[in-house]
Amino acid sequence: MSQTPSILGRAKELVDPATAAAVSGLCDELRVPAEYHLQGRGKGTRPALAILSAEAVGAPPETGVPGAVAIELIHDFSLIHDDIIDNDAERRHRPTVWAKFGTGVGVVVGDALHALAFEVLLRDVSPARIRAAKNLSEGVAAMIAGQSKDMAFETRSAITLEDCLAMERGKTGALLSYASSVGAILAEADDAVIDGLAEYGAHLGVAFQAVDDLLGIWGDPERTGKPAGADLRERKKSVPVVIALNSGTPAAEELARIYARAEWQAGELDAARALVEAGGGRDETRELACTHHRKAVSALDSLAQREEVVGEAVEEMRLLADFIVGRDF
Amino acid sequence: MSQTPSILGRAKELVDPATAAAVSGLCDELRVPAEYHLQGRGKGTRPALAILSAEAVGAPPETGVPGAVAIELIHDFSLIHDDIIDNDAERRHRPTVWAKFGTGVGVVVGDALHALAFEVLLRDVSPARIRAAKNLSEGVAAMIAGQSKDMAFETRSAITLEDCLAMERGKTGALLSYASSVGAILAEADDAVIDGLAEYGAHLGVAFQAVDDLLGIWGDPERTGKPAGADLRERKKSVPVVIALNSGTPAAEELARIYARAEWQAGELDAARALVEAGGGRDETRELACTHHRKAVSALDSLAQREEVVGEAVEEMRLLADFIVGRDF
Repeated sequence: MSQTPSILGRAKELVDPATAAAVSGLCDELRVPAEYHLQGRGKGTRPALAILSAEAVGAPPETGVPGAVAIELIHDFSLIHDDIIDNDAERRHRPTVWAKFGTGVGVVVGDALHALAFEVLLRDVSPARIRAAKNLSEGVAAMIAGQSKDMAFETRSAITLEDCLAMERGKTGALLSYASSVGAILAEADDAVIDGLAEYGAHLGVAFQAVDDLLGIWGDPERTGKPAGADLRERKKSVPVVIALNSGTPAAEELARIYARAEWQAGELDAARALVEAGGGRDETRELACTHHRKAVSALDSLAQREEVVGEAVEEMRLLADFIVGRDF
Repeated sequence: MSQTPSILGRAKELVDPATAAAVSGLCDELRVPAEYHLQGRGKGTRPALAILSAEAVGAPPETGVPGAVAIELIHDFSLIHDDIIDNDAERRHRPTVWAKFGTGVGVVVGDALHALAFEVLLRDVSPARIRAAKNLSEGVAAMIAGQSKDMAFETRSAITLEDCLAMERGKTGALLSYASSVGAILAEADDAVIDGLAEYGAHLGVAFQAVDDLLGIWGDPERTGKPAGADLRERKKSVPVVIALNSGTPAAEELARIYARAEWQAGELDAARALVEAGGGRDETRELACTHHRKAVSALDSLAQREEVVGEAVEEMRLLADFIVGRDF
């Protein structure tokens, strides 16, 4: 595991108080469960990208804060609703919002954070804010479409790798791409720079999700905060599984048979895991993560050659990409 | 029942194709359940208000269409999620989205319509669109806060009438107020006119909800599409119930006792209904509806005196108010 990049701590210091201030304006019925959820927050990759994308175009980090808060709130809304959809009662070793407060509260608190994200961005109306809100609405729509496809995959056979990657580009990539460019949008940077940052984020998203898919099968429960092989237990058609199912090997046929059974006997989880590996799912997903990590870095290299782009911020974006893709897999 | 105002049909013709076009852009997994929900749509009061609020300031009805579509999508999102929250398996004599497609699909389709509303408004960026989106984000936030309070009331005792009205101003009033002014916002009308229209809508919202609360207790199931006394069965603390509970009468004490019981014996629904009436809940809620109907009309009268305001559209807003408040109660 690479060392934790300093931007994560720096962004947290800047963004967390602003997020807390936004949430503190909710009525008690929404605020209490929202704050409970926020206490179990992750590393803050998305807000860090938003801050760096402001700094990358020479703006002060504060310029990226409304975008960082909006993206954090959208991410939280999606997690709260995903936990209802997936019937997950635990996240990061704590009960999820619906498990603690009830499904109805989970639905409405997620809705409240979704709405709050747009309120935060639209509070001060400026041309840059509008573009930021417009792009956010498109990113959120893509994320939700990806989530709906992910759900549909669980009961659909014959998913191609391209179907699966398209789903993940929506579910994870759209918001990471947005996070990686919103600071530059708010700083009113050139379109070419905004596009380059968004491209970096889109590739980072594919790499990030590929690593997440590997952890969902081979990750250490202590570190992931989820049961071992969580994605297999839920019969997720994640990238490694789809690669193995489409491998045309004997492992593919056997994996399809096991995946079709609703209940698993002892040893079948381990068997499924071994079959995904035998079908090439592990190696090819690692390769995919590396390829998109490389493409993300290459987008940064192009940006760094532009006069108006700040080298230090771009270097921090590279470190963040290394950190994300360097998670144990 | 007053005659159906012609604006409802006229607005439907204008708005429904635009809403259908927006929804048709969703991926199949979202589009199919969204279209299923839209087939069971109501009278279209909110889109009609949006169209009239454009016409009221001399703009063509088309100016109000993006606002009408956004408000329709937000209303649909809230209904789909409310049905999950309230565990309602039927709406307008058809299975609700979650009952037909599953809870997860209900959550994600609601989310998709919520996001789509902002996409529709922000698609063409103009100063008017931004203000429309900003006000929508505030209206949606108020609606969600009202919904969360409504949920909390079910298990809370000692709700004052003011608590209850504040909840309803959020849950119903905020979006009706927005619907009644968004056309004028999109037409870039004067602030004073926009505010007057919003005031009309806010009073209309209170009157509308008061009538809805009466129908939730005394409405004919054939017409409401809900079981008789639906709100009492769910132990809703709606306005008539809260008035009766706070009436200081013997009926109040008896009603509180019945309301505290999770299971009702035969006859207790009728007993509860009679106690709400004995505690003044029916008469005072009717009075409240009339008062706010009058205030809504008075806001229109002030508007009609302004040179830039179109009398015909204001007259149609008055007819719509009469129609809404004139529902059998």
